[in-house]
Amino acid sequence: MHPTHLLPLGGLLLFGCISQVHADALRDQANTMFKPIPDNVTEVRGHPISAEQQELGKQLFFDPRLSLSHIISCNSCHNLGTGGADNIPTSIGHGWQKGPRNSPTVLNSVFNVAQFWDGRAEDLQAQAKGPVQASVEMSNTPDRVVKTLNSIPEYVESFRKAFPKADKDKAVSFDNMALALEAFEVTLTTPDAPFDRYLKGDDNALTAEQKKGLELFISSGCAACHNGVNVGGQAYFPFGLMQKPGADVLPKGDKGRFAVTKTVSDEYVFRAAPLRNVALTAPYFHSGQVWDLKEAVAIMGTSQLGKELNEQEVASITDFLHTLTGRQPKVELPILPPSSDKTPLPE
Amino acid sequence: MHPTHLLPLGGLLLFGCISQVHADALRDQANTMFKPIPDNVTEVRGHPISAEQQELGKQLFFDPRLSLSHIISCNSCHNLGTGGADNIPTSIGHGWQKGPRNSPTVLNSVFNVAQFWDGRAEDLQAQAKGPVQASVEMSNTPDRVVKTLNSIPEYVESFRKAFPKADKDKAVSFDNMALALEAFEVTLTTPDAPFDRYLKGDDNALTAEQKKGLELFISSGCAACHNGVNVGGQAYFPFGLMQKPGADVLPKGDKGRFAVTKTVSDEYVFRAAPLRNVALTAPYFHSGQVWDLKEAVAIMGTSQLGKELNEQEVASITDFLHTLTGRQPKVELPILPPSSDKTPLPE
Repeated sequence: MHPTHLLPLGGLLLFGCISQVHADALRDQANTMFKPIPDNVTEVRGHPISAEQQELGKQLFFDPRLSLSHIISCNSCHNLGTGGADNIPTSIGHGWQKGPRNSPTVLNSVFNVAQFWDGRAEDLQAQAKGPVQASVEMSNTPDRVVKTLNSIPEYVESFRKAFPKADKDKAVSFDNMALALEAFEVTLTTPDAPFDRYLKGDDNALTAEQKKGLELFISSGCAACHNGVNVGGQAYFPFGLMQKPGADVLPKGDKGRFAVTKTVSDEYVFRAAPLRNVALTAPYFHSGQVWDLKEAVAIMGTSQLGKELNEQEVASITDFLHTLTGRQPKVELPILPPSSDKTPLPE
Repeated sequence: MHPTHLLPLGGLLLFGCISQVHADALRDQANTMFKPIPDNVTEVRGHPISAEQQELGKQLFFDPRLSLSHIISCNSCHNLGTGGADNIPTSIGHGWQKGPRNSPTVLNSVFNVAQFWDGRAEDLQAQAKGPVQASVEMSNTPDRVVKTLNSIPEYVESFRKAFPKADKDKAVSFDNMALALEAFEVTLTTPDAPFDRYLKGDDNALTAEQKKGLELFISSGCAACHNGVNVGGQAYFPFGLMQKPGADVLPKGDKGRFAVTKTVSDEYVFRAAPLRNVALTAPYFHSGQVWDLKEAVAIMGTSQLGKELNEQEVASITDFLHTLTGRQPKVELPILPPSSDKTPLPE
């Protein structure tokens, strides 16, 4: 901290002036690396998304009947009230089984290069099909999902309205379920974070300490991987580039992107975590073993940058990361259409 | 069905006239037994409830950190998107344990004489403390809940605002958690059901078939137990009064209110189920073993009334029961305050 309170008036004015120039330079530099969250997303893969698709997708997102047990919905592990994640180490699914990785936030996920920690789904519609079928998550099958949705007259009607070009009898499909979920999920963005306001020109959006953290975030090398609109989520990097963290944080059994590409150089490679709203989504890393954001920053310093960040540096960067918390989506809980006597029973 | 389409014009007018008189008599009779759901509830036990208490209660209702695992909230088993219940036979709680009874709806529960199937909690604030502590549900302890809430600065502030008369350091308490939950839950009413509109004078709110069902509901004796504003929930009755249903529907191990009063005459006694929104809350009975509302009506006929209702009677009564589905509460999903480094970790 500059001891501004000790400066005489002239010095204070001069300092104010220098600070302004410096802040502008920092913002200019930041704007080459990051982008503000747009106010809204209205299309996906070049196609406009309809209100009918979004509304249907919202119902499906909250519908526990997508799971075999009828008690797990998308929102169970991607809770929109808690940063779009479940905030436990690894998700708990069907039969109280623990999943292999920490649940990534659904918020702003449309801005990631691909979905899942290893990027194995190219977009949100591909991603949506995964957890529904995973035996440790919702443990359902596409056939059963389609049978369930077809047994609920209001859903059949909603699918027909959301997908008017489909044959009337084929509007309800596993693919269209995924497209509707994606149409809702692209609305789950968190614009207007202090960092966004700063990028757009509001110098008062960040405190001096947070600007120092931003400077360090760039100068230390964090921004080499964590950049773009999501401050991460854009590319893949080895976890433990400079020094492997302990097996608690980087378990040997999970080789990350290697499982997708079968390429030796992709062992322990993961998509750089998108850091938007990171202050809301402890615990951290794919293993979910670190609860303290400061500790996560320090681990990144040693493992990725080969630097022992000192306590003050860690605190500044962490302060900056708090400025990535944006306006959380307002979502009215959807009233779900009731089952019928043809709806498959929970198991 | 009267063959009105075969009547000549004079007969049609005459029929319309008789029908009017008859409908009024039916409504008058119904109004001696039932009451419409009020538009809103603004006090509980004679005390007004504040907006601050309701808002806090809404956050708590959706907060999975009230559970030991951090993944089970009140809304998990009393899902406001699915009729205020979980729509599975018996709730699944901590460690995927199955609870002993079907989850009752939270909707309109403020109008019940007491809470739980056996009425063991006198009101909603007493009820709220049960599932949080039950080992097969949220599996938490009051101490841990208070420690958790006290570790979250925004909650401490919200409790102080909601309970301004409490000592500053004692605003966060297990009792006040329960009072806040109750303050939210009393807002979860479903006014304006077709039946309410009928009671208030709108003759077209029910179809002829539904009116026939209402008549049968009264004349067969259903309304002897299922009456009042909640069409049930007002008093206790033996399940199997005339004929015990099978052990699947009435398991021998669950003696109902006997566990509360230790009185032999209370063996297999339960609170008459409140029938508001019953079409949304399959499966039925405390055991949750009957999925079809018609089958539930038929079982009630034999077990409680000693009557074999014929198919047409069952269909009419079921049609009437569908008129008890009211306007579901609009709830914006609350954004929950983030945990701190003092928050106890999930287990």
